[in-house]
Amino acid sequence: MIFDSNSVWSSQTLLLYMEISMLLLSSKDNAHIKNAVKLKKSAKFRRQSGTFAAEGVRVCMDALRSGAEIETLFVTGQALQKNAAEVAALSEAAQKSFELTPEIFAAISDTQTPQGVLCVIKALDKSADFDTIENGGKFLALDNVQDPNNLGTILRSAEAFGVNGVIMSADCCDVFNPKVVRGSMGAVFRLPVLVTGCLADWFSRHPQLHTYAAVVHGCAEKVTQTVFETPCAVVVGNEGNGIKPETEQACEHTITIPMNGKAESLNASVAAAILIWEMVK
Amino acid sequence: MIFDSNSVWSSQTLLLYMEISMLLLSSKDNAHIKNAVKLKKSAKFRRQSGTFAAEGVRVCMDALRSGAEIETLFVTGQALQKNAAEVAALSEAAQKSFELTPEIFAAISDTQTPQGVLCVIKALDKSADFDTIENGGKFLALDNVQDPNNLGTILRSAEAFGVNGVIMSADCCDVFNPKVVRGSMGAVFRLPVLVTGCLADWFSRHPQLHTYAAVVHGCAEKVTQTVFETPCAVVVGNEGNGIKPETEQACEHTITIPMNGKAESLNASVAAAILIWEMVK
Repeated sequence: MIFDSNSVWSSQTLLLYMEISMLLLSSKDNAHIKNAVKLKKSAKFRRQSGTFAAEGVRVCMDALRSGAEIETLFVTGQALQKNAAEVAALSEAAQKSFELTPEIFAAISDTQTPQGVLCVIKALDKSADFDTIENGGKFLALDNVQDPNNLGTILRSAEAFGVNGVIMSADCCDVFNPKVVRGSMGAVFRLPVLVTGCLADWFSRHPQLHTYAAVVHGCAEKVTQTVFETPCAVVVGNEGNGIKPETEQACEHTITIPMNGKAESLNASVAAAILIWEMVK
Repeated sequence: MIFDSNSVWSSQTLLLYMEISMLLLSSKDNAHIKNAVKLKKSAKFRRQSGTFAAEGVRVCMDALRSGAEIETLFVTGQALQKNAAEVAALSEAAQKSFELTPEIFAAISDTQTPQGVLCVIKALDKSADFDTIENGGKFLALDNVQDPNNLGTILRSAEAFGVNGVIMSADCCDVFNPKVVRGSMGAVFRLPVLVTGCLADWFSRHPQLHTYAAVVHGCAEKVTQTVFETPCAVVVGNEGNGIKPETEQACEHTITIPMNGKAESLNASVAAAILIWEMVK
């Protein structure tokens, strides 16, 4: 391995060695930096530009491996030292690569202790309907889930437990929010995800799907007793308000997570994980 | 109800009506404010002072209902308007109450959009061993869990699913970290929690307990096939490194969560929830 982690290379030496030309940006007024800051903050801008940001070595490498199109790579000198092989691979795939000072990187970062690697990536198509909903298919539907940390964790669980796809109502948190991308641990690049206007409408176009609305009211069937008929989708709602009435009405079944304890509710990402777990196992 | 949410009272009128005398603090140099800022930031200071902070109307009311001793209440004028009945109850229980300007409140708050209610509370005793570990008892043991959001969510799940108690190694995140207190949704006030130096030692002092170490290596028994013998404890480890070798060696069984998908791992709070769910159901 040529990049011995015990030896210290200057970033310029490394770049020369890697035959990468990288401009050093040190002003927040640079157009690329302004663009990245807007991508962090604005879902509207992400939609308009058709791009989003992925931050951290691991998530960026997930993007690369999944074939996502990398427009811009931003890296600090220190991150280049520490992750030379990964940065070389990302830089080769990226249309443009820039080295940033730590201060400038902090401005585009969404984390408190930035790793110093961030890619601007072409948005993945999340509007294409699932080709086939085969018998045996198991899906997760999300109705107005708002918290990006919850959404990221839910996508991570959905992938880990092998659901076939996730259908999200359009009023959910943006799937390309930086916290979602990071929290999903790359699932956002690999998992089939469809964003649709309204779940009730989508369900009506897929009548073969058996739908299970997760609710907290006690008259619903306990998920421990539910026999999921496939193809099926379990529906998880908003953190505070649950599933919208019109979505619940469009579902075939209502199910609930029985709780022994005194707490009123579960964290939304925990509830979603238990439901997925029971559906797929 | 005397506090009609549609009418606007000045905070002074409300205070007079409620017969509460509350000093308005508007300087960050005030000793009470400095104290609250330190409680937010420093686990060491929380230990030394024997106090911690609980933020938000709901969590503060949880503290009050559970009989926790409230030393100081801080409230903004706006929060007082909005939650007059709760603030009156908290103020009656608190040794001291202060009204803060929103700017000063922001300094003591651990949230991005503060609700404007924060209590300094006398630390609960988390060192007393469980009196009895009865047959049928089901416990959760945490080995070096570091992330306060994870720990809060895990305590919330543990309470919701009715575990009998939680044993934490001393190198876990501080149970009185503001993010833990808030994320636990009050479970920290109600759930029996014991912080002990080393789980292996504690297990050796409780040989009747059947211990199940949750690991990711494939040779462990699948949790779906595990028959938990009671009294039992499932052991969850650090987010990155899992359970410490000496803790795993001290456990009777190793178990694992089978995953169908491509993801390497689950969020720690999700993994803990699935394990608790399988243990208690």
